[in-house]
Amino acid sequence: MTVTTDRAERTTTSAVLPTDGAISVARPLPARGVAILGGLWADRIRTNRERSMAHGYAQLGHAGNLTNFRLAAGAKGTYQALGAPMGLVFPFLDTDVYKWLEAVGWELGRGPDPALASRADDVIALIEAAQRPDGYLNTYVQVVGGGQPYRDLQWGHELYCFGHLVQAAIAWHRSIGDDRLLEIALRAVATVEAELGPGGRDGIDGHPEFEMALVELYRTTGERRHLELARRMVDLRGHGLLGPGRFGPAYWQDHVPTRDATEVAGHAVRQMYLDCGVVDLAVELGDRGLLESVLTRWHDMLETRTYLTGGLGSRHNDEAFGDPYELPPDLAYAETCASIASVMLAWRLLLATGDPTCADVIERTIYNGVLPGVSHAGTAFFYVNTLQRRTDRAASDEGSGERQAWFACACCPPNVMRLFSSWEQYLATTDGSGIRLHQYADAELRADVAGGSVRLRVETDYPWSGEVAVTILETPASPWTLSLRIPGWCETASLEVVGGGRETVPAGAHTADRTRSWTAGDRVVLSLAMPPRVTRPHPRVDAVRGCVALERGPLVYCVETADLPAGIELEDVRVDADVRPTETPRGDLPGAPVGLSVAARTTTSDAPITIGAIPYFSWAHRPVEAMRIWIPMASPADPGG
Amino acid sequence: MTVTTDRAERTTTSAVLPTDGAISVARPLPARGVAILGGLWADRIRTNRERSMAHGYAQLGHAGNLTNFRLAAGAKGTYQALGAPMGLVFPFLDTDVYKWLEAVGWELGRGPDPALASRADDVIALIEAAQRPDGYLNTYVQVVGGGQPYRDLQWGHELYCFGHLVQAAIAWHRSIGDDRLLEIALRAVATVEAELGPGGRDGIDGHPEFEMALVELYRTTGERRHLELARRMVDLRGHGLLGPGRFGPAYWQDHVPTRDATEVAGHAVRQMYLDCGVVDLAVELGDRGLLESVLTRWHDMLETRTYLTGGLGSRHNDEAFGDPYELPPDLAYAETCASIASVMLAWRLLLATGDPTCADVIERTIYNGVLPGVSHAGTAFFYVNTLQRRTDRAASDEGSGERQAWFACACCPPNVMRLFSSWEQYLATTDGSGIRLHQYADAELRADVAGGSVRLRVETDYPWSGEVAVTILETPASPWTLSLRIPGWCETASLEVVGGGRETVPAGAHTADRTRSWTAGDRVVLSLAMPPRVTRPHPRVDAVRGCVALERGPLVYCVETADLPAGIELEDVRVDADVRPTETPRGDLPGAPVGLSVAARTTTSDAPITIGAIPYFSWAHRPVEAMRIWIPMASPADPGG
Repeated sequence: MTVTTDRAERTTTSAVLPTDGAISVARPLPARGVAILGGLWADRIRTNRERSMAHGYAQLGHAGNLTNFRLAAGAKGTYQALGAPMGLVFPFLDTDVYKWLEAVGWELGRGPDPALASRADDVIALIEAAQRPDGYLNTYVQVVGGGQPYRDLQWGHELYCFGHLVQAAIAWHRSIGDDRLLEIALRAVATVEAELGPGGRDGIDGHPEFEMALVELYRTTGERRHLELARRMVDLRGHGLLGPGRFGPAYWQDHVPTRDATEVAGHAVRQMYLDCGVVDLAVELGDRGLLESVLTRWHDMLETRTYLTGGLGSRHNDEAFGDPYELPPDLAYAETCASIASVMLAWRLLLATGDPTCADVIERTIYNGVLPGVSHAGTAFFYVNTLQRRTDRAASDEGSGERQAWFACACCPPNVMRLFSSWEQYLATTDGSGIRLHQYADAELRADVAGGSVRLRVETDYPWSGEVAVTILETPASPWTLSLRIPGWCETASLEVVGGGRETVPAGAHTADRTRSWTAGDRVVLSLAMPPRVTRPHPRVDAVRGCVALERGPLVYCVETADLPAGIELEDVRVDADVRPTETPRGDLPGAPVGLSVAARTTTSDAPITIGAIPYFSWAHRPVEAMRIWIPMASPADPGG
Repeated sequence: MTVTTDRAERTTTSAVLPTDGAISVARPLPARGVAILGGLWADRIRTNRERSMAHGYAQLGHAGNLTNFRLAAGAKGTYQALGAPMGLVFPFLDTDVYKWLEAVGWELGRGPDPALASRADDVIALIEAAQRPDGYLNTYVQVVGGGQPYRDLQWGHELYCFGHLVQAAIAWHRSIGDDRLLEIALRAVATVEAELGPGGRDGIDGHPEFEMALVELYRTTGERRHLELARRMVDLRGHGLLGPGRFGPAYWQDHVPTRDATEVAGHAVRQMYLDCGVVDLAVELGDRGLLESVLTRWHDMLETRTYLTGGLGSRHNDEAFGDPYELPPDLAYAETCASIASVMLAWRLLLATGDPTCADVIERTIYNGVLPGVSHAGTAFFYVNTLQRRTDRAASDEGSGERQAWFACACCPPNVMRLFSSWEQYLATTDGSGIRLHQYADAELRADVAGGSVRLRVETDYPWSGEVAVTILETPASPWTLSLRIPGWCETASLEVVGGGRETVPAGAHTADRTRSWTAGDRVVLSLAMPPRVTRPHPRVDAVRGCVALERGPLVYCVETADLPAGIELEDVRVDADVRPTETPRGDLPGAPVGLSVAARTTTSDAPITIGAIPYFSWAHRPVEAMRIWIPMASPADPGG
């Protein structure tokens, strides 16, 4: 076993862990640094652990992913796959298993679960048995792909699979110190290095992912060659090595060198995963130019190619970013995985730069881009997250109205699982000066500051309430800074410090910070005004011209047919430009207690009506008819207008 | 040779030829009944004959389609295909050859062309050599598909290929009496009948097309079994025989029995080709209920799922119809083939019902849905016909800005060729009472009416002018009706008859008709007022809310960057709701002499500007930047508004 365990390694359970030498501005909290205790996220994490994980295991069995490892290990039988297009068998089915295992790794770190651990042990044993003596491991290639590794870098997804294997391995290593997967992964990565590493042939995978895994492997093993292999993969991309493929070289970000690309392009998940790896690489290399290139793309993406929900990708055909401001609500792709990858990238940028707007992106995306992708019960998923569904629909409906138990390409469900299993990692960071709270949840946090250990209790009903109370449970005597993010959507925020008197701290543009000597029992209360808001689109977004959206706090709202007066079709509803939505308690929707209520009218009658709006993430939990986020404003062009 | 030649057969060169027993209201003109002499269509037909046909032959050689027939005949080599997705080889490449041959058949009927005839002879010889002794013929199955026919009815496209073979064969038979292809086709169809005909197993092709070919084969051979096989194929569809495939059973119209389907669904070309066959079948069977089902779908399609251009299909992913009113301009698919198929269907409905609005659909679609798909030079093609292209675009641009010489899936180019080669067939019909002119072109027409032969000279500069002068060159003494279509877009029309005095005939809702005894030299002048129009979208079309389009006569106009003042981006242009476009002569655009000029402003300045608009079919003939058909109206929401 070649793994060395350095200081940071021993004291973190973070999926992303810059080394001490990295130029990152912020660091994750230490091992078990955050425990979410209540509220929306405690509920979601519990559901994920208790329902989704078992569901995922059953689906991996049903879809045949586990059988494929048995076949690779020598068992007789037919390679298994749910129906893929035109008789194709997807070559990346191993990753569903690896992502599920990553989630198990984080969950076992949170607390024991013998049943889950036993299932995982079986799966790890299958993987061990499937790995070839030479270290190579890919059930598709071994069973039906002819057995020759690295012959189809365009579509074979072999390195992509290894990336997920490595991430699972690191979760098990960091979370519970179990290195079985890590040893498998190291042997597998060695086969890549032999074929495609320095001195080998030039080749990159059509689907980025391996890069960030390699950097994290370097962070875990301390072996520079993993970082160098990541650098090689990033440097080789953008020179046309992959050819045009079906969708042109931008589909796999191979159209322009990564360092020179100023806009996101092509397949959204690929771009996000690539940029995650590029940030990881840049901070470890101290390559500020490379980091800057990601920031340039990221800012352009946020400005021109991001849905209100944080969702990414407007093109179903190639799962890709479209033109700037090409953001159709009905034809949105907004793959759940793309939102997850966006959260992963924003987190890396937050660590790298300390910019609190990164946390704004995480917030918008986790609530409105990721959460809608999983049912409240945790066992049904959206792959595509449409922003609009019509009353009448095409007979060939692309699954935009009902969450599914699983998919032929099942990347999203286990991706949700691993993100929710590690969600507490995204709540806060430390740096030399203190602790920064980025996401608000009812939680206890523990971190080290310059003078010693800090323990905090955060009490809040966020996202339903904007009140966040932080109590200092434990602190050194020396001063440190407590920083609380002011979300970008919040226009009125105040911070009150209670302890040795009462003090109001002015909120900055993006954070409210207080530096002082703290005493156990001190209390800080952040008040974020959270009135319902009416949001207008950018005038270049053609697809929602003349519409408004409703938001409250970090949540995007939507209207479903069930919340219209009887007999009205959602397509006929219009609101006035100066509409003022009000809050309505919603006891009928699981996990979504705050609804909105809006005055409206229809194109078919002059009578005023009132319609309800619910958090977008809670849509499609009742019999699904029509839904829309962007609601047309009344116009003289309407028949009834 | 089993072909019988009946009366109608001897006197027509129409691709669609209802038998005397059909319930069709109208009939095509007789053989060589129309000669287009001048104007836009003479130009286009000449270009098609002189440029496109040679280009097509060269591309069929370059892409390997002809080589594949050599391989099927026993030559050694590798099956040829331009790059298809993920290493797939399309199994329908034979159809490109058949459609090109169909076009050659019509062209040789128009007049001799020894070079073209010689090339076609070579190709026919290749096909003859490739056909197996048992009559089966499909280069994909024979060379790389394992040799077993009809094993993959979902995706194999074997019957689809035969459909195009039959249509080519009928063109050669009717146009010049050459039956080489017809004999090949009859042997091939016999293999289908043996396997899938009455008494065989139940099976239909994933891609309709064979149905209409079978009915036409019945019309040519008089053999009822061809009609019965068509009936069997139509009856079997809609019962899930094909399974869900990748996109669900509606993709190939197998979700509901054809007779019961009230909406178009799935892949647009498949739906149109299917309904062509259903109309053909219904009129021959006298099955008015079946015909009515097509009309129900067709009217719903025109109301809810048809672009202003006549284009069909808003979903790139499955080339499919979307939801009702899901008509995004930027993400329009509007495949050239779908527009061609729409023309084919509307023509069949026109023959079946006599409804002149069918000719309105043909007109809108041929000018704005088909013509844009081919360059003025005749050698470059659009597969996708977007209605909007942005100034900034995604790096992974789906070929929406530049016409291409050919495609990996090259259905569209030879489909344009066969339509233009037979375009004069669509201009007029006869029925018991006289002659109906549906499309206006500078032409000479010949037809039989009850009392004898009629010859007409039509003089017009349509679509640039709304003046259409018809001179009677030859007529029997007995009365007959001359009917001239009043296009749906025309608000003011008048018909003047000069001959034995001067007489003004009131225009009806859809036609202007005059029944009388005509004399050679009589002259009829139709005046269609053709002022520029401003068109507003239906309020349910979300994607173009707050926009207007410009039209004149049958032509949809668009704005290209080249016709904006320097430095202005098309995305910033706004027009007022009461904008009044004016005509502008355009000498700079080949084949598009009438432009429009519109007052506008921008979102970035208060200064008024003037922008130009050109016929949509002429876009992308200058260096392509931005283009749009739907132009936003000025709104207070705009930054400069």
